[in-house]
Amino acid sequence: MTGQPITCKAAVAMGAKEPLQVVDVVVGPPQKGEVRIKITHTALCHTDEFTLSGDDPEGLFPCILGHEAAGIVESVGEGVTTCKPGDHVIPCYQAECFPSDREKNTCPTCRGYSLGKTNLCGKVRAFTGKGIMRADGKPRFTLKADGTPIYHFMGTSTFAEYTVLHEESVAVVRNDAPLDKVCLLGCGVSTGLGAVWNTAKVEEGASVAVFGLGTVGLAVIDGARAAKASRIIAVDLDESKFERARAFGATEFVNPAKHDRPIQQVLVEMTNGGVDYSFECIGNVKVMRAALECCAKGWGVSTIIGVAGAGQEIATRPFQLVTGRVWKGTAFGGFQSRSMVPKLVDRYLNGEFKVDEYITHTLAFDHINEAFDLLRKGQCLRCVMTL
Amino acid sequence: MTGQPITCKAAVAMGAKEPLQVVDVVVGPPQKGEVRIKITHTALCHTDEFTLSGDDPEGLFPCILGHEAAGIVESVGEGVTTCKPGDHVIPCYQAECFPSDREKNTCPTCRGYSLGKTNLCGKVRAFTGKGIMRADGKPRFTLKADGTPIYHFMGTSTFAEYTVLHEESVAVVRNDAPLDKVCLLGCGVSTGLGAVWNTAKVEEGASVAVFGLGTVGLAVIDGARAAKASRIIAVDLDESKFERARAFGATEFVNPAKHDRPIQQVLVEMTNGGVDYSFECIGNVKVMRAALECCAKGWGVSTIIGVAGAGQEIATRPFQLVTGRVWKGTAFGGFQSRSMVPKLVDRYLNGEFKVDEYITHTLAFDHINEAFDLLRKGQCLRCVMTL
Ligand SMILES: NC(=O)c1ccc[n+]([C@@H]2O[C@H](COP(=O)([O-])OP(=O)(O)OC[C@H]3O[C@@H](n4cnc5c(N)ncnc54)[C@H](O)[C@@H]3O)[C@@H](O)[C@H]2O)c1
Ligand SMILES: NC(=O)c1ccc[n+]([C@@H]2O[C@H](COP(=O)([O-])OP(=O)(O)OC[C@H]3O[C@@H](n4cnc5c(N)ncnc54)[C@H](O)[C@@H]3O)[C@@H](O)[C@H]2O)c1
Ligand SMILES: [Zn+2]
Ligand SMILES: [Zn+2]
Ligand SMILES: [Zn+2]
Ligand SMILES: [Zn+2]
Repeated sequence: MTGQPITCKAAVAMGAKEPLQVVDVVVGPPQKGEVRIKITHTALCHTDEFTLSGDDPEGLFPCILGHEAAGIVESVGEGVTTCKPGDHVIPCYQAECFPSDREKNTCPTCRGYSLGKTNLCGKVRAFTGKGIMRADGKPRFTLKADGTPIYHFMGTSTFAEYTVLHEESVAVVRNDAPLDKVCLLGCGVSTGLGAVWNTAKVEEGASVAVFGLGTVGLAVIDGARAAKASRIIAVDLDESKFERARAFGATEFVNPAKHDRPIQQVLVEMTNGGVDYSFECIGNVKVMRAALECCAKGWGVSTIIGVAGAGQEIATRPFQLVTGRVWKGTAFGGFQSRSMVPKLVDRYLNGEFKVDEYITHTLAFDHINEAFDLLRKGQCLRCVMTL
Repeated sequence: MTGQPITCKAAVAMGAKEPLQVVDVVVGPPQKGEVRIKITHTALCHTDEFTLSGDDPEGLFPCILGHEAAGIVESVGEGVTTCKPGDHVIPCYQAECFPSDREKNTCPTCRGYSLGKTNLCGKVRAFTGKGIMRADGKPRFTLKADGTPIYHFMGTSTFAEYTVLHEESVAVVRNDAPLDKVCLLGCGVSTGLGAVWNTAKVEEGASVAVFGLGTVGLAVIDGARAAKASRIIAVDLDESKFERARAFGATEFVNPAKHDRPIQQVLVEMTNGGVDYSFECIGNVKVMRAALECCAKGWGVSTIIGVAGAGQEIATRPFQLVTGRVWKGTAFGGFQSRSMVPKLVDRYLNGEFKVDEYITHTLAFDHINEAFDLLRKGQCLRCVMTL
């Protein structure tokens, strides 16, 4: 089919708050610098639901959501050098300039002073933010029924049998990696691990508090365990999450609802002064404050991972920072996506951290609206759909 | 006078908002672990004024204020090993456990996991916070007139001809350092330099924004110049501060009042995306937010130095942190006081940074209330008083 449009199934979000419609779409051939991928597995995550809910100011409809997936390259457009048909790949919503050719072909954040300081490559952001492709400023998807253009989402749009990505968004992984598992490395799991290893840089012996025990919080726990943290305190309002958190490496468990004092105070007392590192994995601005304030005076580092509702703000007294606490955040765990995701696959296959254990549900792709329901009800960690 | 009380002059704060009274006080002999110092020079700083204003919840009266000074050891109490009579010293409100004997005689923050992670030694804080000395839980000062005890302040109380400090609060400096100049290394100048070198760790080529061009802001500028920052943008509402800022190393000047857009936006535009480092040297929570938000996405670091009014809070959208900005603060510039202040004296004498240039006024000690007036009116950087 190289060079030809492909007609296939996709789950199209026709408008905010509407159920997805699994319909036929036409996926144009990859143009210059583009890669067409056959998606084999996709999970879903809160960002998909956030955009579908209509709260995302950048949300565009109709669109094809999905950003946590794996697949196989079907064909590549002109000039593509870093992947080829048959390669196993993970789509990366956070793109990365060509690592092999940084000085020549890079965006301003991937060269000069800022090289290596951040993973927030800006190479294709101007296009992916608008749901279109760089080569011609248009989407590659149209509705089979009437030719309506369909916007891309996060530069990935993995709720489709075939999708088209910028080359900068494609991480090539080894061919023996199980695609039904490593698809999770496209978002939540990598984010939690990277928050610990890259953003906070937790060291051996440190004490850690983790707020929220969904996929991201569990990945933080697993990352902290791998980093040899001495205490890993798991915090959640839902005590049914504690058992799994223990299996991931948490050593202590706190339900804020069971205390009449602010949770930061409870943690400061438990740790005789505060934790060395804390992580907010919920998206609640009040909890973000508590996560900062439960850190040790002098050196405690708090990392925000959760995404708050539009317009919400965090607050604290500046004295919290003047006395040595540090407030940070992370996007995709600070991993340079195309360089590091293949290494994460290697480390997963080495048994260094968990992936399979997040998959609480599997569904066929045409049941995708059920997967959204599970997510909304907080009943699943990750639901992987097979295409 | 070793072992005997000394009667001398001190400027006593009898109550909040009252002018200081220069009266005779009796200074007890140093007890175990204490050092009696003849103060030769003292400056004053906003923290003295803050406590005198009555807004400091820890403020106690009557007390002897003052924490930016230099002097000569008069006598030492039992067990004191790190200084001796005749030593030239700088009182340090941020104490430090004995660097030579860390494992044996240290507070929890100066050993184990946290060793080297912070300068916020806790060895004598419980006593200095209450205005008393560790050996007997009492102050060493009494009013000559009627024997009323007078509280210590910040563990230093330098508005007196003689004062008593815990050994942990005494930095010994070389005898050829001019005490009328190096007294400034006891607070503001060291704080600004250290914020750049220790807390933010500004590197060569970085762009820097400095909010507030008092002593602290100028020291940040001087520290950034020494660190070879490429751009140093000075921000103040008072344009009369710009010329001096240029002499200290600032390369660009912005008056927020001259712009109709938020100052963070002005700076982001000036720097094509935001500065690498920013510093708040005012104590205004709104400016603290602007200082964070003018930082570059991905790696910008904002450091709070200013001390805000009681109960005030900083706020921002968490997205500012999730997209890679870091929010920090600093106390005494992160310098381990007794170890590092002597090295700062060396570096000053090597010409590595300015000190003399902050001294805009000198006064005799008994004119101390005029010095407070100058400070309140914003008319001086530092006023050094000779005792
Ligand atoms: N920064 C990034 O790059 C990035 C990447 C992926 C996900 N995220 C965000 O991370 C967050 C977590 O994602 P997830 O998939 O793990 O979510 P999740 O909904 O599965 O987990 C959230 C957990 O928090 C608990 N919780 C809710 N309110 C609480 C409170 N007040 N106190 C304690 N616990 C509370 C819930 O019981 C639940 O267990 C989301 O906001 C998501 O958007 C961010
Ligand atoms: N963290 C620490 O260890 C530490 C140590 C010393 C001092 N401090 C604090 O640092 C701060 C600065 O001290 P200083 O002696 O340099 O103060 P200062 O009053 O001499 O200087 C403040 C400057 O800010 C300017 N300014 C005021 N409002 C402004 C605004 N909205 N926008 C721009 N500029 C504005 C003023 O014109 C002035 O030039 C104080 O809050 C002080 O308490 C903190
Ligand atoms: Zn880039
Ligand atoms: Zn996601
Ligand atoms: Zn100590
Ligand atoms: Zn001061």
